[in-house]
Amino acid sequence: MKNIIYLDNGATTKPYIEAVEYASNFLNDNYFNPSAVYHEGIFVSNELKSAKNSFKKVIGDNFDVVFTSCGTESDNTAVFSYSKRGNVVTTLAEHSAIHAPFTHLKNQGLDVRFAKINKDGSVNVDHLLSLIDKNTTFVSIIHVNNETGAINDINKIARLIKDINKNVVFHSDGVQAFMKIPYNLSNDIDLYSVSGHKINAIKGVGALFVNKKLKTLKPLILGGGQENGLRSGTENVFGIKVFEYAMNSHYNTLINDYKKTATLKETLINNLNLDLFKVISSDNASPYIISLSAVGLKGEVLMHKLEENGIIIGTGSACSSKNRHSRMLVEAGYSDDILDGVIRISFSSETTIEEVNYLIEKLNENAIDLKRTIYKIK
Amino acid sequence: MKNIIYLDNGATTKPYIEAVEYASNFLNDNYFNPSAVYHEGIFVSNELKSAKNSFKKVIGDNFDVVFTSCGTESDNTAVFSYSKRGNVVTTLAEHSAIHAPFTHLKNQGLDVRFAKINKDGSVNVDHLLSLIDKNTTFVSIIHVNNETGAINDINKIARLIKDINKNVVFHSDGVQAFMKIPYNLSNDIDLYSVSGHKINAIKGVGALFVNKKLKTLKPLILGGGQENGLRSGTENVFGIKVFEYAMNSHYNTLINDYKKTATLKETLINNLNLDLFKVISSDNASPYIISLSAVGLKGEVLMHKLEENGIIIGTGSACSSKNRHSRMLVEAGYSDDILDGVIRISFSSETTIEEVNYLIEKLNENAIDLKRTIYKIK
Repeated sequence: MKNIIYLDNGATTKPYIEAVEYASNFLNDNYFNPSAVYHEGIFVSNELKSAKNSFKKVIGDNFDVVFTSCGTESDNTAVFSYSKRGNVVTTLAEHSAIHAPFTHLKNQGLDVRFAKINKDGSVNVDHLLSLIDKNTTFVSIIHVNNETGAINDINKIARLIKDINKNVVFHSDGVQAFMKIPYNLSNDIDLYSVSGHKINAIKGVGALFVNKKLKTLKPLILGGGQENGLRSGTENVFGIKVFEYAMNSHYNTLINDYKKTATLKETLINNLNLDLFKVISSDNASPYIISLSAVGLKGEVLMHKLEENGIIIGTGSACSSKNRHSRMLVEAGYSDDILDGVIRISFSSETTIEEVNYLIEKLNENAIDLKRTIYKIK
Repeated sequence: MKNIIYLDNGATTKPYIEAVEYASNFLNDNYFNPSAVYHEGIFVSNELKSAKNSFKKVIGDNFDVVFTSCGTESDNTAVFSYSKRGNVVTTLAEHSAIHAPFTHLKNQGLDVRFAKINKDGSVNVDHLLSLIDKNTTFVSIIHVNNETGAINDINKIARLIKDINKNVVFHSDGVQAFMKIPYNLSNDIDLYSVSGHKINAIKGVGALFVNKKLKTLKPLILGGGQENGLRSGTENVFGIKVFEYAMNSHYNTLINDYKKTATLKETLINNLNLDLFKVISSDNASPYIISLSAVGLKGEVLMHKLEENGIIIGTGSACSSKNRHSRMLVEAGYSDDILDGVIRISFSSETTIEEVNYLIEKLNENAIDLKRTIYKIK
């Protein structure tokens, strides 16, 4: 394995070796079915309960924890459970895991309303609130945008929405916020989705936090009644225990990691050649995700150039890599020359200042080279 | 870890160490998002394609492979995709992963028809066929019953059903059949569910085989469009590669393992004290699953006694462990004294004759002891 600088942590992260090692006994020795009633099964079942308790310690005891197979499943469970009548409201800056189920429901005839967004990818709160009325049943607002890192103040937004209609069920996709930025969820948040592989756990595990006051969540997957009937299917014990470990590990250093990453972002922005790059992310966005555009260039070409230098970055959301332009940034109103040049740098808590300095050097160097080639400048 | 004899392989199996080791590079080095367009992401994406091809080699190239998070998700995807109008038909011997979604749809008003079953847990084919008519849209029949090992001849049944109504979509839950009993799926099988953790892969991964002639499968989970749009959410790469390895490993020795396990079953049945035990499984059932009843005793008490001897067995389906009696065996018409005493022995390909001989000894010994205690016999 060659030495690479991995800066696409918004797409996925490298699993913590210690987390995998910690949980490996659930593959080797404690592989039993947690539904089994013999001692070994009960032991595994208790280990799942202790994992839930770890999450509750972090997220608040007013939430139940339902383990799922991924953030997308968590999001779909929330949307399909509550989007059945009246109208539902979301934003034009949601991840596909929210955008796609809402689009499906809209095509089926449901009144789905999309709030406009600001240039940085945050929701336009005034427009959002104008869409809420007495028939609104469900609202979903992404916490930290996966392309720009824009932070929506979900506690405040949920409060404003419930002031208009107290019966609204409020969900937020917290996949890019959880264990990255510091926050507490208020009791106005009814549902909150998170994903394991975005925080150095493994792919194939996620969770939906369900406010205990919410009594009517409907499962997406029915069967043996695991997860208190809210998610059937034999539990991914190994994945859940890796997730727990990675979460605890991040939680212990969350504030320090946040500060360190904010410095990395500042360094990047301050040293970028702003004749070549436009910064799309705002200053108050999550420092873990930085959206830039090498205006007039192709983001993908720049990405491949950096790859030759051993640096891996993203081009917008990995999930939308098959489309030419980011759906969300098109909605934010950017012109084609900016959209073409979009790249996404996403840090992990382990990213170093040396790596960022090297990134800056190579970003500036490659962008000027590409410009010279394209525009025949000497 | 104490040395145990694990005979609850119908509930879950011990992951193959070699499979986990083989796939561990997808945690340590090749952790990249398979949707990413840089070299490393494309490499992972190709590894997923090669996993699909491994399954197609086994199941037939007329099937596409959609990876899911578990057998339950595969089953739910099939049921919810096709159970929308007319009537749908299943059996009274399905796993909860089929029974629960059908019950949900029945409660919503859909015409869901349940075929009667025979004493061994196989479907009553005459009754099943009498339920099929020109309005039948979807049929789901378990391949190998998870409680008794009863084998339904799904190729024959699917053919008979399609002779009545050629438009029926035919699904089978193959979780307990796949890599256990030898078979080929005919082209009348439209959908087939399998699970990783039942064949020495890990929990958290399954697959739905989709006949290529079927054009209208609808995803249960929507989002980034992974799995050709049929199952969104970042792929569980590690789980899929463990699954692939375990499957290939089983496939290479399938016939020999089957023969060996048939001998184990025969040994068990022939040496069981039939004054104490009633054999529920039929002779032509899968040798991997044997349902017995210690008539007049409590199966769970016997199970705990065997646990003291270091032998782990099941009491019916782990998934139904919260109910007093097996739903399916109640439907098969057994009396309470038989239902109370039900235990399930489920072998793996690694179960040895020595283990089975020890099991026989302890089954007979404990059953007679318990009877003596209960009935005050000396």
